Amino acid sequence: MSQKEKYAVGVDLGGTNIKVGIVSRGGKIVKKTSLSTNADGGPREVVSQIRKGINEVLYKNKLNIHGIGIGAPGTVSTKKGTVENPPNLPGWEKVNLGKIIEKEFQIKVKVENDANAAAIGEMIFGAGVKYDSFVMVTLGTGAGGGIIFNKKLFRGEFGAAGEIGHISIDLNGPRCNCGSYGCVEAYLGNQYIIKKVQTELEENHSSKILGLVNNNMALITPKIIQAALEQGDDYAKEVVLNLGKYLGVALASVGNCLDIGTFIIGGGVAGFGLPLFHSVEETISERVLKPLRKRIKVIPAKLKNDAGIKGASALAFYK
Amino acid sequence: MSQKEKYAVGVDLGGTNIKVGIVSRGGKIVKKTSLSTNADGGPREVVSQIRKGINEVLYKNKLNIHGIGIGAPGTVSTKKGTVENPPNLPGWEKVNLGKIIEKEFQIKVKVENDANAAAIGEMIFGAGVKYDSFVMVTLGTGAGGGIIFNKKLFRGEFGAAGEIGHISIDLNGPRCNCGSYGCVEAYLGNQYIIKKVQTELEENHSSKILGLVNNNMALITPKIIQAALEQGDDYAKEVVLNLGKYLGVALASVGNCLDIGTFIIGGGVAGFGLPLFHSVEETISERVLKPLRKRIKVIPAKLKNDAGIKGASALAFYK
Repeated sequence: MSQKEKYAVGVDLGGTNIKVGIVSRGGKIVKKTSLSTNADGGPREVVSQIRKGINEVLYKNKLNIHGIGIGAPGTVSTKKGTVENPPNLPGWEKVNLGKIIEKEFQIKVKVENDANAAAIGEMIFGAGVKYDSFVMVTLGTGAGGGIIFNKKLFRGEFGAAGEIGHISIDLNGPRCNCGSYGCVEAYLGNQYIIKKVQTELEENHSSKILGLVNNNMALITPKIIQAALEQGDDYAKEVVLNLGKYLGVALASVGNCLDIGTFIIGGGVAGFGLPLFHSVEETISERVLKPLRKRIKVIPAKLKNDAGIKGASALAFYK
Repeated sequence: MSQKEKYAVGVDLGGTNIKVGIVSRGGKIVKKTSLSTNADGGPREVVSQIRKGINEVLYKNKLNIHGIGIGAPGTVSTKKGTVENPPNLPGWEKVNLGKIIEKEFQIKVKVENDANAAAIGEMIFGAGVKYDSFVMVTLGTGAGGGIIFNKKLFRGEFGAAGEIGHISIDLNGPRCNCGSYGCVEAYLGNQYIIKKVQTELEENHSSKILGLVNNNMALITPKIIQAALEQGDDYAKEVVLNLGKYLGVALASVGNCLDIGTFIIGGGVAGFGLPLFHSVEETISERVLKPLRKRIKVIPAKLKNDAGIKGASALAFYK
């Protein structure tokens, strides 16, 4: 490891675990650790766990550490480094995480919303390196997103821009956790996919999914659907094509709003692979305004495992 | 008129008419003219008409002219001043309008897409003066828009950002002129409103609209619907509330995407007034993500008559 290369610490603050790693400017993790968030202990305990994690990866460190980046849920003020009302972290109202960690380690700290950090991660290390502008979509439990425009994160008025999961594609569609109807997340969020498949399979018994779970509907996951898809199951294929269509309809609206033609899709649900990506791209191309049509590109995210750590560390490399 | 005040020439290039005016930095039109576009004559003829219009307002001019702004339909490259494939202007592929006019008049020329010019107009002279960021929506024959973020126009990759009229609110909704389904324009565009009301009135004969047009459905316009609304007609009220809901659903998605909470609405259809604005604001507030909810503001555009000339002239005052 050359001493000339720069490194950063990335902290991925989640509701269950805190993942911390040292990442090179080239995007390689050279050391990492994972701790329980101990969210029930409130902000003081969580901050103490973050400190512990950073101390662990920095123990006996001889690398040139450029900065610390923290990806956090909730509303983040990047100027002040505060984290406000993060879902799944009880007892937080507003915590000045940036200042606390900066004071402790005497290293420059940047804090950003986790979905925005993922977008910056793809821009600095991942599939977005060669694009000036793209929209990042992360499909997992929820559906998050981030907007990169001219190599910069578009944050909106208070850092909450890029909530692609809450673009509605049907004003009378299924109720979303956010309180609205027909949001992307209400179609592509993990639990929504599973529930829809369970309901539909109660009527349609010809899918290989049932065999894969020994008829125990409770065992259905996106991975099981993917396995059935890979075995050529027609129903699984239909499910995935529809998911692609739903996402594509929303991204066509996003494209028309932003005039950005490149979409990077990551997260567990992106594991459906090519059938999903083709369906998304086809739908966007069919629905977006003509001048944008020929510029549409839908590509998989590159940061997979440790995307959280890498995205967070990218904050330190991002100006 | 003080010689210290700055003035600009605004050119509103439409498919039917070219409107040209001299506008003060304070937003007042001091002289104006209107010419036929003569679109069928092709770009050479249209450019000649623009020249004629500018010459007319500049004739015997003694004011301090700061620049010329041109609002044009189609895709505009602001750097090069080119206008590409404007709808309703046959024979144009790419015309370097900026350079041609600049060479002729030896005054700095700025060219921008007309919807974007309208947004800049509201920012410089209108309802947007006191907001750093807002989304402008113009409801007329079509539904256009523009995004102002931190006192700058957000143009996207090729200047086509802000196409609010082509946000889809129902993936299976009515077919839009653009080829997609359920776009805002397919609900709020003039012709779509009229057609829907005509169809519905064939079944519902209790509206005052019918009396206002002497049962001649062909005479129905948004102004007639507005007149019925002002007379307390229940059906007209329902129409307007629904239009507000449709627009509100789309703007909630836009708000979630951009994290911008202020919406300025102009154009003829905005003439429905308070019932429309309330319905839009209520719908956005119900559907947008929680942190944004308390920041939602829906306000009428300020530039009404001559919004095109004023918006175009604002380009010259905008850095």
